Amino acid sequence: MTLDLLQFSPEVAAARAAGTAIVALESTIITHGMPFPQNVEAARAVEAEIRAQGATPATIAVMGGRILIGLTDQQLDDLGQAKAVMKISRADIAACIARGAVGATTVAATMICARLAGIDVFATGGIGGVHRGAETSFDISADLPELGETAVTVIAAGAKAILDLPKTLEYLETKGVPVIAYGQDAFPAFWSRDSGLKAPLRMDTAAEIAAAQLMRTRLGLPGGQLVANPIPVESEIPRAEINPAIEQALAEAEAQGIAAKEVTPFLLQRIFELTEGRSLVSNIALVLNNARLGAAIAREIVKQRG
Amino acid sequence: MTLDLLQFSPEVAAARAAGTAIVALESTIITHGMPFPQNVEAARAVEAEIRAQGATPATIAVMGGRILIGLTDQQLDDLGQAKAVMKISRADIAACIARGAVGATTVAATMICARLAGIDVFATGGIGGVHRGAETSFDISADLPELGETAVTVIAAGAKAILDLPKTLEYLETKGVPVIAYGQDAFPAFWSRDSGLKAPLRMDTAAEIAAAQLMRTRLGLPGGQLVANPIPVESEIPRAEINPAIEQALAEAEAQGIAAKEVTPFLLQRIFELTEGRSLVSNIALVLNNARLGAAIAREIVKQRG
Amino acid sequence: MTLDLLQFSPEVAAARAAGTAIVALESTIITHGMPFPQNVEAARAVEAEIRAQGATPATIAVMGGRILIGLTDQQLDDLGQAKAVMKISRADIAACIARGAVGATTVAATMICARLAGIDVFATGGIGGVHRGAETSFDISADLPELGETAVTVIAAGAKAILDLPKTLEYLETKGVPVIAYGQDAFPAFWSRDSGLKAPLRMDTAAEIAAAQLMRTRLGLPGGQLVANPIPVESEIPRAEINPAIEQALAEAEAQGIAAKEVTPFLLQRIFELTEGRSLVSNIALVLNNARLGAAIAREIVKQRG
Ligand SMILES: [Mn+2]
Ligand SMILES: [Mn+2]
Ligand SMILES: [Mn+2]
Repeated sequence: MTLDLLQFSPEVAAARAAGTAIVALESTIITHGMPFPQNVEAARAVEAEIRAQGATPATIAVMGGRILIGLTDQQLDDLGQAKAVMKISRADIAACIARGAVGATTVAATMICARLAGIDVFATGGIGGVHRGAETSFDISADLPELGETAVTVIAAGAKAILDLPKTLEYLETKGVPVIAYGQDAFPAFWSRDSGLKAPLRMDTAAEIAAAQLMRTRLGLPGGQLVANPIPVESEIPRAEINPAIEQALAEAEAQGIAAKEVTPFLLQRIFELTEGRSLVSNIALVLNNARLGAAIAREIVKQRG
Repeated sequence: MTLDLLQFSPEVAAARAAGTAIVALESTIITHGMPFPQNVEAARAVEAEIRAQGATPATIAVMGGRILIGLTDQQLDDLGQAKAVMKISRADIAACIARGAVGATTVAATMICARLAGIDVFATGGIGGVHRGAETSFDISADLPELGETAVTVIAAGAKAILDLPKTLEYLETKGVPVIAYGQDAFPAFWSRDSGLKAPLRMDTAAEIAAAQLMRTRLGLPGGQLVANPIPVESEIPRAEINPAIEQALAEAEAQGIAAKEVTPFLLQRIFELTEGRSLVSNIALVLNNARLGAAIAREIVKQRG
Repeated sequence: MTLDLLQFSPEVAAARAAGTAIVALESTIITHGMPFPQNVEAARAVEAEIRAQGATPATIAVMGGRILIGLTDQQLDDLGQAKAVMKISRADIAACIARGAVGATTVAATMICARLAGIDVFATGGIGGVHRGAETSFDISADLPELGETAVTVIAAGAKAILDLPKTLEYLETKGVPVIAYGQDAFPAFWSRDSGLKAPLRMDTAAEIAAAQLMRTRLGLPGGQLVANPIPVESEIPRAEINPAIEQALAEAEAQGIAAKEVTPFLLQRIFELTEGRSLVSNIALVLNNARLGAAIAREIVKQRG
């Protein structure tokens, strides 16, 4: 009965029928990450990258009381220009569908929808985490427990350095979430390849990552994996360059009394300005990089599942 | 085999057979909230309100190695005068049943029992939350994770303002719990209609709340919803009046070295005294108000489920 | 298909076929707790104690892409001398199996494997907990949420007093984990019989503990129970003696800048030195004591299940 709620695009429906690799993509990056038409252009570029790597992209969003698994050109254009879009997570996805509203899926909601659609792999930019100051604010993203509950391998470039990364890693360890650095020992920090923290696990091939997810499923363990894929060298903003911008943005937020849900958008905008736009260029590069790895892992899962 | 553990009252058994709306009620309010006989009188008034709204009340408690779903007049009288009643939550409900003790169900335990009995809606006063000082005490009610795991819609007047409400809302967001203010934008604060905090979701009809719970179930998401129903205007103690009493009670608790599990009963007793009994009158009014809304939501769920 | 991953020793396979009592044991105590050959000697002594109490020991470890449920003499010797053994928890057990590495199971991982193997009871020394300083480090063992999710009764001598015990009890209460002191009211503190904290539940017989676990299962509640079994009087190091050693070790760790994962091994080594080896003698005594109680509970579960 859940399947009635899912509306597969023709492209995704064909991939499902053929049993070929599919990579889920989120939609808040489209509705809340960039202005139109850059958002739609970036989304199309990411989808094209996945196709080029032999997999099918499935951008996920909520519209008209259903969950779209894969957007048509028209739907992507509509979403890119939609107003008053709900940014949905585990807490509000049901309400959004029930009221027929337009919803853009965060990492947590995209994982839920991917799982419902039988998609094992989801490529994104960064995941939410434990916010700086969470020891007193208790502000922790719903993305973190979701990784412990929903069986989807999420490829991200780590978590943004505006978060508290040591606490984010501790939280994931407590929840039993595998955190896998790809091709290096260090946990990457979104714009930078190295956060200065060691990742709990390291894997160097898509095959190994796929095997670990399949083994987790065989063990009957719920939950997915976080693959922390470092941004390509040529696109990174090294820690020594990005950290001063982050510190300055944080100081300004505090000085100006920016609080609660306004903090993250404020910080990202200020980092964009302070890096003269490099942070956005890096952001697009890392999403493309994650899409490539996501396609490779999705193909491996299809192959290993046999 | 679980059903053997449930003992339905004749009234609830009849409602189940007829497929009509049922609203669960907890029993700690009876055993730990008020003295006899006011506790039994209040419980009967709440049950009567649910019947007047076209639904069947099911007060839940543990006795004689079984879970009572609906109490007879005699059982309610007995419970209202029982001594040494365990106040049970998720952690100790099994032990209480196994040892044949009398147990009064908190929000978490009532949710568990309601779910076992197939009851979708539960009306109460306030829920437990993140305690003030939890950043160092780690004192967080088991009611909060329960809302993320057990599929029951809980109607409460928010959480008591003696708790840390901003942290409580953050915790619920992290756990993916829908928090729905009924008929207003603000999250209510038990005795007051407005906590000063915005609720994540707002719904204005029982039908919308019922639809959201049914959609959550269709999505295969575990967990329920918290409906935060503001106390009626005529019964509220506005923030400007109740907050000084809360602050004074907190200061006295600290000065007198009241700690751990003694804090909440001490605060409630002092607030009762400082408001010259108004806090208890408000408490009964808001439970009746929640019972009314619970009945309406329960009827909507029956109707929509078809 | 999960069962393919399990390799039962001949002794455990026989017990399963006969339907007799089995007690799971962890393996990090072997690989990370003591040097060879004392580790293997201690492990054999614990196994012998379980056999003497009429149950079958099942020491659990990961080797060769499978989960060993019960080790042969040869496998135990090999594990006792193995190098570069992964210390596995929920987050990395799947990766360890998938890559064919050798893994020693912590409390969380042993619970997962015991559950897969249909073993209800697991005896260990102490469980992980909330670390001191967790209010800023967020360092909380994955053992704690595991107790809320995986249906295994764990017998431990409480949690080590190097942890933050009040926070550990609060965390377990929030997660709905039954914490049962055996034969006394106080929650024990590993080397000492009394932590100064009251346990939420007290049970005086193996039969009562077995009945509570079976009731929890009947209720459909996931998760196990923590049985906190005080160290025998003759082996305990009373609080007044052990606490100064703990305080000194903590102070030295801070002075020397010991951080993160190095803290616990450093503290245990210093406490070993400061107590002139008594802490290790106590440790072995309490594990044997837990093995005895574990066997009694396992036999009761077999009996009550009928
Ligand atoms: Mn947040
Ligand atoms: Mn508490
Ligand atoms: Mn840790």
